[in-house]
This record gives sequence, structure tokens and C-alpha cells, in this order.
Amino acid sequence: MKRVKLTVAYDGTRYHGWQVQPNADTIEGELNRHLSALLQEEIKVTGASRTDAGVHALGNVAVFDTKARMPAEKISYAMNTRLPEDIRIQESCEVAPDFHPRFCRTVKTYEYRILNRRFPDPTKRLYSFFYYYPLDVGKMREAAAYLEGEHDFRAFCTMRPGIENTVRTIYSSEVEKEGDIIVFRVTGNGFLYNMVRIMAGTLIRAGGGVFSPEYIKAILESRDRELAGETARPEGLTLVEIHYPEEDKAAGMQLQNR
Amino acid sequence: MKRVKLTVAYDGTRYHGWQVQPNADTIEGELNRHLSALLQEEIKVTGASRTDAGVHALGNVAVFDTKARMPAEKISYAMNTRLPEDIRIQESCEVAPDFHPRFCRTVKTYEYRILNRRFPDPTKRLYSFFYYYPLDVGKMREAAAYLEGEHDFRAFCTMRPGIENTVRTIYSSEVEKEGDIIVFRVTGNGFLYNMVRIMAGTLIRAGGGVFSPEYIKAILESRDRELAGETARPEGLTLVEIHYPEEDKAAGMQLQNR
Repeated sequence: MKRVKLTVAYDGTRYHGWQVQPNADTIEGELNRHLSALLQEEIKVTGASRTDAGVHALGNVAVFDTKARMPAEKISYAMNTRLPEDIRIQESCEVAPDFHPRFCRTVKTYEYRILNRRFPDPTKRLYSFFYYYPLDVGKMREAAAYLEGEHDFRAFCTMRPGIENTVRTIYSSEVEKEGDIIVFRVTGNGFLYNMVRIMAGTLIRAGGGVFSPEYIKAILESRDRELAGETARPEGLTLVEIHYPEEDKAAGMQLQNR
Repeated sequence: MKRVKLTVAYDGTRYHGWQVQPNADTIEGELNRHLSALLQEEIKVTGASRTDAGVHALGNVAVFDTKARMPAEKISYAMNTRLPEDIRIQESCEVAPDFHPRFCRTVKTYEYRILNRRFPDPTKRLYSFFYYYPLDVGKMREAAAYLEGEHDFRAFCTMRPGIENTVRTIYSSEVEKEGDIIVFRVTGNGFLYNMVRIMAGTLIRAGGGVFSPEYIKAILESRDRELAGETARPEGLTLVEIHYPEEDKAAGMQLQNR
């Protein structure tokens, strides 16, 4: 028996999110179905991040156990010949039997893309949020900087039962202009439900001059969801990377033991 | 009666190209249908470039005559509320009654995008051509430079009945790396059928080391289609812009006459 970790990229457009649901196409459902067929045993993956409907990923992570003899590294290639075109495994490797994609320490990076121009660009519509009103990137950048550090992000999440601790640490929160796309890129040790999309909706308000960048501080302190901006639409959001610092340590150990 | 010029952007993925065909969705067909409904008269547009199935555009041009009173500038907004999401008018304006989108002098710009990495990225699959084998961007850039200038491009086109003159002028032909995307951007006074896609297929061969950059010269001189590379897949191609130098002159005249 071995534990295998998959790094999974997908276009979330036509899926009802990551998590298996009856009578709906989901990323988890597709992975379970094709892994089970490939390895000839019932496979149920555990995902690192249960992305919502319409959200994309370049590096979500799924883990499963298998008795199959196929080397872990080959599973990516074999799966990519079976999966639909809008899901592609980027890497597969064996991990320690106690590796858990959600309970291990992680550093996650998300990008939220805003297409800010006069008319929509049809070739960007599936992977960005179109916003007509001109946004001030400088103000958005200033506002984004207030999100960095350890804060109680209760004002920036949709509360769910069972969630008590809403303190998270944001390592970096940056806004860049790439042609007519404004990219909000945020890295942290954990994200609450809808957190990045509410941050994006709030930065759009700051960029449009609805409130000043410093007002982000007041929103954080209020812990009041009503003060932050809208939950921005899902198509703008991409889970870029999930980094497991423990893996670096393990890789370092292996190098030392050579 | 006035003549109206539309600048049209579209995602070509689900269309059978520009040109009207029976029983198939086309860009021209969608424009005719929605313009006729909007303006309450039968409209048939004339397109500048009849792009192939799967090819995208940011700035194709269509022209039509109408008796409708609606100001030309408003037509873009009205049409964008009717058109499917994958077609968007970028601008509409009145032009001289003798303006013809194909017979006027034009400067066209195309981009061909190649995703060059180990595994496909599902969020880029619709707007780039995925190529696994590592490409040498320096060699592609060198090769692309040989395409600049006035040449007989017979080796770089699929011949069609009625085409005799295959001499065209390429003003610039450049290759840039943007992350894991290689962008081939080419501007010229006219393009033969499949010309940019054959150029792209040929640059991929140069980038993969199949032949040296200088070999482009020999291909041009041979006038032999067999010597050039494959016609690269349509999803990588975007018609970026069609520029009409006469319009600049007209705008200059208007300024002088103020």
C-alpha cells in the first residue's frame, strides 16, 4: 500500500466545484472515477482545497492510497490520457503514509484576475472577472498591503458551522497590472470560506474610490462581514499553488542521507 | 443610408469560422441575425478577414449599410446586450460610403500562442497550442526575423483558386516569451490562406532544432509548401488588429478642417 499525491490543474468553468455531489460533474468525482478505472480498485481521493463552482486551479492537491504496482510517477501520464481536457495532472509522487493534504502545514497562493477595460474580451471571459468602471491600481495595491500579516479575517469570510478561529496569516498580498488585466495575488497559511473573493470584491471598491485604502484596517478590526465588499464572481479566481513546507524538510533529509 | 464599421472580438472555439454556412454557427451568421433583429431590416455584413474554425479575434472588422436612425456609436452597446458571450463588439462608427474592409489598404496583426511546458494547462488550452518538446526561443526569434520584408510567400500558404500574386510584405515578425507561453506576433500588409499558421508551424521546427533559423531563407526561395512546417492548430491563432491607414489620413483631414 502506498500513498500518492497528485497536483491537479483544472478549468472550473463546467464543474460544480471540487467536492463530489450527486448528479453533478465535479473535479473530485472525475478523479475518483478515472483513478478507479486505471488502478482497478475503488479510489476516493482527499483534496487539499474544496474549490467552489467555476473556480480554477493550477495546483490543487489530492491524495489517495493504492495497492496498485504502477509507480506513482507514472500515474500522471496515465491519468492524462483518460481525463477530460479541462483537468490535467501536473505531477504525481509517493508521499509518507501519514501525509494529509489538509492537516499538514501549508502555504497557499491564489490569484484573482480582473479584466478592466471598456468592453469585454471574449477570449478572457472564462478566466477573469470583467469590470467596466476604471480602477486605480495604485489604490488597490495600497489597500491590498493592509491585508498582510496576522489578522482576524472574520469580516472577510462567509461563516460556516464549526469554524471558530478566524485568525489567519497573509504572507503577501499584491496587485499587478498585466495589460488590461489587474492581478491580485495573495499567499497565506490558510484561507476561510470565500476569503479571497471577498478580498477581491473589497479591493475593487478601493480601486473604484468607494472607500480609501486605509479603510481596510477598519474593516478588519470591525470583524463585520457587512463592511467588506461583495464576494467577487468565481471565474476570476485561480488556486495557483499549495506548498507543503514539510516536504522541503523531507527533501533536505533525503539529500543529507545520500 | 449610412455605412457602419464594427470592430469585433470573439472566442472562435465553438464556431465554424467567420463565413456563413448552412446549418453551422458562424460569426458572420450571428452578426447578421442580431443586427437584422436590432435594426429591423435585413443586414448582411462584409467581413475584413474570414477567419477559420477555432481561430480567435480581438479586432476583426465588419461593415454594413443601414437606413436605421440609431447613431452608429450606439450600435456596439445595443448589440452587446443581444450577442452570445463569446462575441463582443469593441467599437462601432460611421465610415465613408466607399469604405470596403477588404479592398482598402490594411495593416493586419496576428498572434500565435504556443504553450511550451511539461503538461497542458487546462486554463490556457482554448487560446494556445500546447507543445511539450522544449523550444529554443532565441532560435525562433532568429528564424522569425527572416520572414520580415517583401517576399513571395508561396511556400507559406495553402493555395486557393484565383490567387496568383503571393508576394506580401511583413513589417514585423517577433517572438516573445511570456511565462510559459511563446508568442509569435506578426504584422503585414496582407496574409495568404493559412499563412500565419504555417509560419508558426515552421518556427516550431526551428525552435525544436529540426532545421536552422537560416533555412527559412531557403524555404522562401523554394516557393515550395512541402519545405515549410505543418499548419499549426487553429486555437493558437488570434487576429489582433486590422489597421486602415486611410482612416488616419481622414482623421487628420477632419482635424485640419476644424
